[in-house]
Amino acid sequence: MAELRRDPIVGRWVIVDTDNPSKPEDFEHETSLFRSGVCPFCYGNEAMTPPEIESIRDPNTAPNTPGWQVRVVPNKFPALRIEGDLERQGIGIYDMSNGVGAHEVLIETPYHSKDIPDLLDHEIEDYLAVCCRRALDLIKDKRLKYILLFKNYGPSAGASLEHPHTQLIALPLVPKNPAEELKGAQDYFEYRERCIFCDMVRQEMQEKERIIQENKQFVSFCPYVSRFPFEIWIMPKKHNSYFCRMQPQEFPDLALILKDTITRVKKLFGNLSYNFLMHSAPIANDDGVEYYHWHIEFMPKLTRVAGFEWGTGFYLVPTPPELAAKYLREVQL
Amino acid sequence: MAELRRDPIVGRWVIVDTDNPSKPEDFEHETSLFRSGVCPFCYGNEAMTPPEIESIRDPNTAPNTPGWQVRVVPNKFPALRIEGDLERQGIGIYDMSNGVGAHEVLIETPYHSKDIPDLLDHEIEDYLAVCCRRALDLIKDKRLKYILLFKNYGPSAGASLEHPHTQLIALPLVPKNPAEELKGAQDYFEYRERCIFCDMVRQEMQEKERIIQENKQFVSFCPYVSRFPFEIWIMPKKHNSYFCRMQPQEFPDLALILKDTITRVKKLFGNLSYNFLMHSAPIANDDGVEYYHWHIEFMPKLTRVAGFEWGTGFYLVPTPPELAAKYLREVQL
Repeated sequence: MAELRRDPIVGRWVIVDTDNPSKPEDFEHETSLFRSGVCPFCYGNEAMTPPEIESIRDPNTAPNTPGWQVRVVPNKFPALRIEGDLERQGIGIYDMSNGVGAHEVLIETPYHSKDIPDLLDHEIEDYLAVCCRRALDLIKDKRLKYILLFKNYGPSAGASLEHPHTQLIALPLVPKNPAEELKGAQDYFEYRERCIFCDMVRQEMQEKERIIQENKQFVSFCPYVSRFPFEIWIMPKKHNSYFCRMQPQEFPDLALILKDTITRVKKLFGNLSYNFLMHSAPIANDDGVEYYHWHIEFMPKLTRVAGFEWGTGFYLVPTPPELAAKYLREVQL
Repeated sequence: MAELRRDPIVGRWVIVDTDNPSKPEDFEHETSLFRSGVCPFCYGNEAMTPPEIESIRDPNTAPNTPGWQVRVVPNKFPALRIEGDLERQGIGIYDMSNGVGAHEVLIETPYHSKDIPDLLDHEIEDYLAVCCRRALDLIKDKRLKYILLFKNYGPSAGASLEHPHTQLIALPLVPKNPAEELKGAQDYFEYRERCIFCDMVRQEMQEKERIIQENKQFVSFCPYVSRFPFEIWIMPKKHNSYFCRMQPQEFPDLALILKDTITRVKKLFGNLSYNFLMHSAPIANDDGVEYYHWHIEFMPKLTRVAGFEWGTGFYLVPTPPELAAKYLREVQL
């Protein structure tokens, strides 16, 4: 019989198929081959993007020329623009506002066909450090309230460009999904005086069956209330609200576990599409809150969201996370 | 500049690209060709499904044989099963329950390649009447709290079988998405003493620019706060909480506007994938609530949900609904 599971943070239910669980080979998913052609993110095509905001590059090279390793540029077709103040108005029963915010692109590598598993460890550390630096820079803008870093990889994940890149969006308000997550975490803290994410790490490390990998500072696991088959969360073991306030000594461990995660997924499913998101507390000039704990949510695109999910907010999960974690642990690296 | 719009019911924000709106030909979407092969929903293959629950058929034919026009069967791989009572338990910080509920399939037509636009008007009325009858039957089961009718059409919409069919799921609780919609509608009613959906119909019919079609009892429009390009809502003009308590004289008008909607979308985009959902109030033995108004939400699959949407709950809408409605109105039928 199917098992219903309820997420303790936002109250989301999922239906886990424990009767006829799907094996990795049961999923019909897209695997991409890298195409050639002109790519604006490739080495030598720097003039095809807006001027760079920041880069890690050979000090003997000029901005917007080759010689870089990580490069940050404004999104050429931004969802939001940095100019102006937020102005809200009513339109009958509706509300409208102008689109203030930032929308940047972090080009992870000059190589079109190198994803995170193909990079050297120190290159991944540099990429993570640039992600943090961009967030720390935008935090200074008093109009901005929330920063989201996310990666869409492959067409099924919504990537419009093939060259591996991460996006940063800074918003003038805390959007609905993080607001719900924060509220749920705060309610739990008020009731128990403990961080729900710290409790989750503790329970997962005790039960072990959903753990994929751990190192000194991070742990990766398939969450008990996964929404998607082979969903993976990467969480710092030590409580910290903000992704961007990570300590420099944490970068090597995060780089290792992120590389390990994507490598395992790609060994199982080939070059499939995926999204990952850095969940972090909203912008504030403080040392963080006791109730919120930053983490990465990684979602391989193996299934499609359909009418049932749209209509209910429930998710149908064909592979129990316990089994997914087992498959991922057993990957030969 | 992009325009941010806020949904007055659930507080969802969308970012509408009013600067560089996408035209219908700008979307890269899948269009399916019907395949041949053995289909369990086709005429003559009745033995390939579980025994039928209900059907509209020639009275001289036996159940589970040819001679039917609409046929309802249990889902062969149900997400939930009808046996047993709901039993919840805690697993550390998590909650678990068994999966009680109903999962039925309504086969809309015996013809593999006939979608709603290809049916006769009275055939669509019969299909709608069967949808209502199944809901009215399941309402009697005291364990069930919410019924969702939805259609996944085409692979991008999550359909695993090609033959046109609608699904019914009955749940032992009111799930997150409808609960939020109900709460928002109730809050609005408490503040204004008016139904927000009645107000929406009134405003749309006054402003006209998002209306696609109307008849005596129904109106179709692209909602001001669309989440998806070319999203369409079909709403009864007269207040009524429950889809399944529609009056028989409403079926012909609903059949006409549903056929008109899908025909227009398919003229613009070919045989693309889509989802639609019947949003209705939860099960109750009453005449309905003042604050909730049933309606259909129709979503053509032209874009993919990506990291930004997952991370924020915001949606990026490349075609403003005003423009989408104009394209849909101008379709030559």
